[in-house]
Amino acid sequence: MHMLRKILVVGAGKSTSYLLDYFLEKSASEKLRLTIGDLNPEGIPEKVKNHPSCKVIQLDIFNDDERIHAISDCDIVVSMLPARFHIKVAEDCIAQNKHLVTASYISDEIKALDTKAREKGLVFMNEIGLDPGIDHMSAMQIIDRIRAKGGKMLLFESFTGGLVAPESDNNLWNYKFTWNPRNVVVAGQGGAAKFIQEGTYKYIPYHKLFRRTEFFDIEGFGRFEGYANRDSLNYREAYGLQNALTLYRGTMRRVGFSKAWNMFVQLGMTDDSYSIDNSEGMSYREFVNLFLPYSPTDTVELKMRHYLKIDQDDIMWDKLVELDIFNRKKTIALKQATPAQILQAILEDSWTLAEDDKDMIVMYHKFGYEIEGEKKQIDANMVVIGENRTHTAMAKTVGLPVAIATLLILNQKIATPGVQIPIKKEVYEPILEELKNLGIQFKEYDVPYLGYNPDSVAS
Amino acid sequence: MHMLRKILVVGAGKSTSYLLDYFLEKSASEKLRLTIGDLNPEGIPEKVKNHPSCKVIQLDIFNDDERIHAISDCDIVVSMLPARFHIKVAEDCIAQNKHLVTASYISDEIKALDTKAREKGLVFMNEIGLDPGIDHMSAMQIIDRIRAKGGKMLLFESFTGGLVAPESDNNLWNYKFTWNPRNVVVAGQGGAAKFIQEGTYKYIPYHKLFRRTEFFDIEGFGRFEGYANRDSLNYREAYGLQNALTLYRGTMRRVGFSKAWNMFVQLGMTDDSYSIDNSEGMSYREFVNLFLPYSPTDTVELKMRHYLKIDQDDIMWDKLVELDIFNRKKTIALKQATPAQILQAILEDSWTLAEDDKDMIVMYHKFGYEIEGEKKQIDANMVVIGENRTHTAMAKTVGLPVAIATLLILNQKIATPGVQIPIKKEVYEPILEELKNLGIQFKEYDVPYLGYNPDSVAS
Repeated sequence: MHMLRKILVVGAGKSTSYLLDYFLEKSASEKLRLTIGDLNPEGIPEKVKNHPSCKVIQLDIFNDDERIHAISDCDIVVSMLPARFHIKVAEDCIAQNKHLVTASYISDEIKALDTKAREKGLVFMNEIGLDPGIDHMSAMQIIDRIRAKGGKMLLFESFTGGLVAPESDNNLWNYKFTWNPRNVVVAGQGGAAKFIQEGTYKYIPYHKLFRRTEFFDIEGFGRFEGYANRDSLNYREAYGLQNALTLYRGTMRRVGFSKAWNMFVQLGMTDDSYSIDNSEGMSYREFVNLFLPYSPTDTVELKMRHYLKIDQDDIMWDKLVELDIFNRKKTIALKQATPAQILQAILEDSWTLAEDDKDMIVMYHKFGYEIEGEKKQIDANMVVIGENRTHTAMAKTVGLPVAIATLLILNQKIATPGVQIPIKKEVYEPILEELKNLGIQFKEYDVPYLGYNPDSVAS
Repeated sequence: MHMLRKILVVGAGKSTSYLLDYFLEKSASEKLRLTIGDLNPEGIPEKVKNHPSCKVIQLDIFNDDERIHAISDCDIVVSMLPARFHIKVAEDCIAQNKHLVTASYISDEIKALDTKAREKGLVFMNEIGLDPGIDHMSAMQIIDRIRAKGGKMLLFESFTGGLVAPESDNNLWNYKFTWNPRNVVVAGQGGAAKFIQEGTYKYIPYHKLFRRTEFFDIEGFGRFEGYANRDSLNYREAYGLQNALTLYRGTMRRVGFSKAWNMFVQLGMTDDSYSIDNSEGMSYREFVNLFLPYSPTDTVELKMRHYLKIDQDDIMWDKLVELDIFNRKKTIALKQATPAQILQAILEDSWTLAEDDKDMIVMYHKFGYEIEGEKKQIDANMVVIGENRTHTAMAKTVGLPVAIATLLILNQKIATPGVQIPIKKEVYEPILEELKNLGIQFKEYDVPYLGYNPDSVAS
């Protein structure tokens, strides 16, 4: 049997509920000792803190002594810190011969540790959450299977969305914030979206991003839409899709969200590049009026409808009214805030999950391929519904792959050293298998191959 | 009488034709000796080079010895270099006690020399071209006059445009490049346009900038439109307009240009933030198709009309066709070019001034004010038509104020030392007077004060 294995989890934010539970549930059978290091450990639930196999320490990761000491006393480190803070932890893991697991994108700094990690036989597993994470694993499982049968990949599309569960979906936007609201407000900014369709590069500027959507139907859940991520070509080499004609990655929303969100984009309310001097105390109505032409006679409402070219019986209009953005009394509490920060604050009034609200994760892949002269397509999708505001589908789908990978590394089932993402069979097979046991699984459908089907693209 | 005075002009680019002519014409009466220092002096016209009062030297302004020596041998330096290169020259002027004149915006580096310039009694005159330049002087002349009569400023709007003269205006865009084409293609980028209307801040995002235009009529020249510059509030303090309710600065075009230009903005073709890997050898048609959705059946033309929601009998469509952007055979010569660079190259095919084409400068100011309880308004405008491709209206309106200021400084008519812009009476009165003698003058009209008139704002 194993000796006692020590896991250090650094950072116990809201995505860690399932992660911590998984370790503690397995603590007896797998002989695990869990240490949670966090700057503010008060937030950690009593049930976790008081578990006999759990130790909670206050840890400032910028304090070298504290950090080095915490890492020295474990076998593997799980860093759930914001991505930019991983590097300190990663360097200590190299120095002290510890494996490392993160759910974040590999930064150049982390990548640079690859040779050292290999030399020392250390597994540095990254991008092992939901997206990135489950998307890599589920996609590579099907791509490898197609290739094993002799198929040649023609098309790969992949979309993920963090949404509200149907039973809690009670606003006109069919949307609530289930993760970092800021990322939602500034989504798509910073450059044109780039992808490849039927062998041709395509670029969508930010102000058109939410008008170039694609539809998806998921059995039992209805219709969704997707808009393009900034760079759909990021994993072209990693997935071995250099010859695929279509590569498209994106974000899923309920149908109608993007068209409505585009109103804010058009107005300039999502801009995060400048601050508004007199934002504190400004009414929601005054905020809206900053982006509309001056008129000595017309109301903000009329100017808004005219500017957006919508009628008052348009559902788009109802969506704006629902957010109470024309309120004269509600005021902005933020000083010198950017339009995006103010918009976020206004949306949080309406889109914050209620105590008993449940979230929902959806993922949709399309795999087009050619085999024995025939063109075929597999569509695969996954839906996960959360339990409550702490045990969200987001926390589950981010945390469980991290937890499972950690245990597999401790058990040397995942043993290939180096800085990596979960695209190898050794990694994705056992993780997807265990996720299935925990209720996270994809449904696959054979569908006709239509190439990139323009009829399912909204203008 | 004066002793011989020595003027050094650094940089003899295309804006210097009138500037050099002015000095040489005055060389006998004013006892001027002109030295032109340029990296490539071959480009300087024979007529100038061979003038008895002119000396041409090859000058690399990054060569300290050459630069210091050239400056030591003059009484005043006129720097017509690109703005970022002025600082080296300015520092030498301080060290060697020489006055300095430039047509560029004051940089922080130049501003930092103010105390030293004052201590040494040196005039460092900047922003003394067209825009900035003539705009400052003509505006301050009227503002000071209104104030002298006891008026209180309520509104100031100012628009400038570099256009093609009516007799050379033979394309559907009513536009040709008369200055730096790159500045035209990327105009308005880098942040929201900010201004103030009737006491309220207003922000226009880039993708709406060309849809929020204002109209202007100029007697004898018809109608123009203006779109907002990025920061209309830059000269609020300098002009003493802290209490004005409306401050709006912008760029003038012929009516219809902005609506058509907006097509490129919407498509994402003006983006200068990323490069297209395979741009070299790409056809114009392929370039256009990068920004349109994929379709296995529809033509680029149909996709374009659908995307822009225009019909084939729309004048907008004719404007695109005129540019030949759907051509399959014309190819892009630029490697790894940004969309903006490629668009510029395509537009240069159509919008380059022909040998005998003339350009036109238009400037339009509005001054709203209150006097003895009454609200009034003065509109003032200026039109200058160029002579030919060398002696352009642009070169005239940029070069003459620089030349006139230079002479006035030499003659101690402009004597207040320090780093400055031409907003003082001592400066603008004699310059505007001399410009009038040279055919550059404003017409003024008393018009009803309407505040910011929403009826003249295009939606």
